[in-house]
Amino acid sequence: MGNYKFLMDLAVILLCTKLLGVVTNKVQMPQVVGALLAGLLLGPSMLGVISETNFLQTIAELGVIVLMFSAGLETDIKELKKSGKSAFIVALCGVLVPLAGGFAVAHFFNRPDMIPSNASSTTLLQNIFVGVILTATSVSISVETLKELGKLQTHAGNTILGAAIIDDILGIVALTIITSITDPSVNIAMVLLKIAGFFVFSIVLGYIFFQMYKYWMTHSDKMRHRHTIIAFVFCLLMAYVAEDLFGVADITGAYIAGLIISNTDRSAYLQEKFDILSYLLLSPVFFAHIGLSVELPNMTPMIVLFTVVLCITAVLTKMAGCGFGARLCGDSPAECVRVGAGMASRGEVALIVANKGAVVGLLGSAFMGSIVVMVVVTAVTTPILLKITFRNGPVDKVSETENITSYHDVVSERRRNISRDLIKK
Amino acid sequence: MGNYKFLMDLAVILLCTKLLGVVTNKVQMPQVVGALLAGLLLGPSMLGVISETNFLQTIAELGVIVLMFSAGLETDIKELKKSGKSAFIVALCGVLVPLAGGFAVAHFFNRPDMIPSNASSTTLLQNIFVGVILTATSVSISVETLKELGKLQTHAGNTILGAAIIDDILGIVALTIITSITDPSVNIAMVLLKIAGFFVFSIVLGYIFFQMYKYWMTHSDKMRHRHTIIAFVFCLLMAYVAEDLFGVADITGAYIAGLIISNTDRSAYLQEKFDILSYLLLSPVFFAHIGLSVELPNMTPMIVLFTVVLCITAVLTKMAGCGFGARLCGDSPAECVRVGAGMASRGEVALIVANKGAVVGLLGSAFMGSIVVMVVVTAVTTPILLKITFRNGPVDKVSETENITSYHDVVSERRRNISRDLIKK
Repeated sequence: MGNYKFLMDLAVILLCTKLLGVVTNKVQMPQVVGALLAGLLLGPSMLGVISETNFLQTIAELGVIVLMFSAGLETDIKELKKSGKSAFIVALCGVLVPLAGGFAVAHFFNRPDMIPSNASSTTLLQNIFVGVILTATSVSISVETLKELGKLQTHAGNTILGAAIIDDILGIVALTIITSITDPSVNIAMVLLKIAGFFVFSIVLGYIFFQMYKYWMTHSDKMRHRHTIIAFVFCLLMAYVAEDLFGVADITGAYIAGLIISNTDRSAYLQEKFDILSYLLLSPVFFAHIGLSVELPNMTPMIVLFTVVLCITAVLTKMAGCGFGARLCGDSPAECVRVGAGMASRGEVALIVANKGAVVGLLGSAFMGSIVVMVVVTAVTTPILLKITFRNGPVDKVSETENITSYHDVVSERRRNISRDLIKK
Repeated sequence: MGNYKFLMDLAVILLCTKLLGVVTNKVQMPQVVGALLAGLLLGPSMLGVISETNFLQTIAELGVIVLMFSAGLETDIKELKKSGKSAFIVALCGVLVPLAGGFAVAHFFNRPDMIPSNASSTTLLQNIFVGVILTATSVSISVETLKELGKLQTHAGNTILGAAIIDDILGIVALTIITSITDPSVNIAMVLLKIAGFFVFSIVLGYIFFQMYKYWMTHSDKMRHRHTIIAFVFCLLMAYVAEDLFGVADITGAYIAGLIISNTDRSAYLQEKFDILSYLLLSPVFFAHIGLSVELPNMTPMIVLFTVVLCITAVLTKMAGCGFGARLCGDSPAECVRVGAGMASRGEVALIVANKGAVVGLLGSAFMGSIVVMVVVTAVTTPILLKITFRNGPVDKVSETENITSYHDVVSERRRNISRDLIKK
């Protein structure tokens, strides 16, 4: 008889990630938390029902590629240009401060006498990488909370939504640079040249592909299977070429492929298709796989301490960075705290980045559990922080007076798409 | 760096299956022919661009499960009851005659001095298995041809559509029995008992699941991700349990799972989701994988002769069997020829069955190429035969007078769904 054990693995993963996802959703947490818990529960550190197989690992890798492609697909570059400086400044400060904070914490703990690391890269690069993980905001939880509070259409709400998009792009740039320098013996100038080469290549090929694809779509009476398949092929090839020719992370290639196709006017059609591919097969396996790969028996008291410090650092540095950025743009202190609170949550992108780091030797396996806990903790605390800051602060000015409603609509649509995958029951 | 070669494999498979699919579609052949050719072209017997990996094989296996689940999902059991005896008689004769014909041809050729087989099963079972492969009709091509000729709403058109559904079910029963007896040392009575046990189990569990699932769906305001995921979990578990507990083919379990869920009134919603999962990832890999596994260098003159005889047998036995069945039901000789011509085409189910046989040791690798050629040949000749029989025959009576239009609508909708996947440009 052929191999059919994978059928059971898939059934158990899909069932448990969904069940726990629904449970965490009931208690106001995103479903991704439930999916992670399902992986932890099923994995070798607890029940041991599922063990890692080559198939599950490859499906998880494909899952990340499609998640990042979708993230790119849901970005609207044209609208980004209109969002002005303020979102950019908030995002930039909100990336730099957590980067420094994560580095500092890792620099303190990542030592042979405290938490020994089995990662292959140099300690300096490993520590910077922890900072990079802390940069990526996930606003889907904030969007849901603000909607519930009726505060999404406020100035703070708009700033959060705009900054989150730029945050994604800055995070990708940081990830690209750090994962390209995993080997300390490589020539840094050469690496940067390769990265630059990749971006030039992406712009040139992206422009040509975009023009051809757009022409093809507008000359078809309707969207067909072939349009979706060619978009997927483009995503896979960009991911492959990024790794193979330029030594750049494959998820960067997939994200840029999505970004390029997002400029066509029928990207919503494509989003819907890739959404189904994601939630029905790839994403549950990816999130469960992260839970599976966490090694709980390694949780020494020092790792527990590291985890606590990391969680506090993650929340405080994001709040401080984004709040400072908002202050630079002239927001009131109360507004700054709200913006900071709304950006504090981490989510799927932090997990994707951490997973990539583990694969390329930038993150020791002892640290992976802490990162997962950090994501869960920030996801749980963000709604609480947001509710406090919005309920205690002064009455918020409404953004309609600032004429950015149309931008808001587009961004919130984008964010709703992302959160759909995580929060939909 | 992690393993990313699979990204390129997937990109090449998706691109080539689609490109060749579009090409074959232009020349009035189903896209599945193009997908098979793509696999042949890319595989070790020709270009050697793609080699079989554990990942591709498992994705292909999952692809078959989802294809069979979809086939079950698209069947309407309630409507089947209304279709009456005639479709059943046509289908039954159309299964028995090719079964005998395929067995006879294999019995002649499957000998050490003619075509040596490397299959592990006994020669008798191998020969019966070739017959089983020949039983499965694929009417998607006939539907497209009849539509084009404006003859879908005729008596012959309706008989073809009704018989094709029953044909699927009979084919599954034959497959289940033969794949359960792969080892000649097993007790046949025990095997039949296990099969019976599986069907009893399916009916009991299926009834409980169906009632719960229906209750759950009707008490939800709308269809959600969770409904689709639970349906998929049910499919995977049924496939696993079939193999693991009852020694029945996993695709039988998946088909029955689909059949059970097809009774809910929102199966169209589910069909759409699984369709996307299929065409965007699983099906192209499955069809290309079949092409990949064909060993062209083994094509001795004897195999070529076997292939030619097999193709002729496939077309003639199906035409004779179905035509005879139609004659038993009182159709005119001209009508009988039309019905026979419309049922002659083989397609994805024949390939799925053959693939399963290769895995369990019922089909030698030397024969796989002949089966693929047979599918292509029947797919190409069916439209030609149909056009000849409809253009030369007497004017056809229109089915409206027989009051089976509503049945036709449902079945043709089902068939359109299947053909959508194969024929859509």
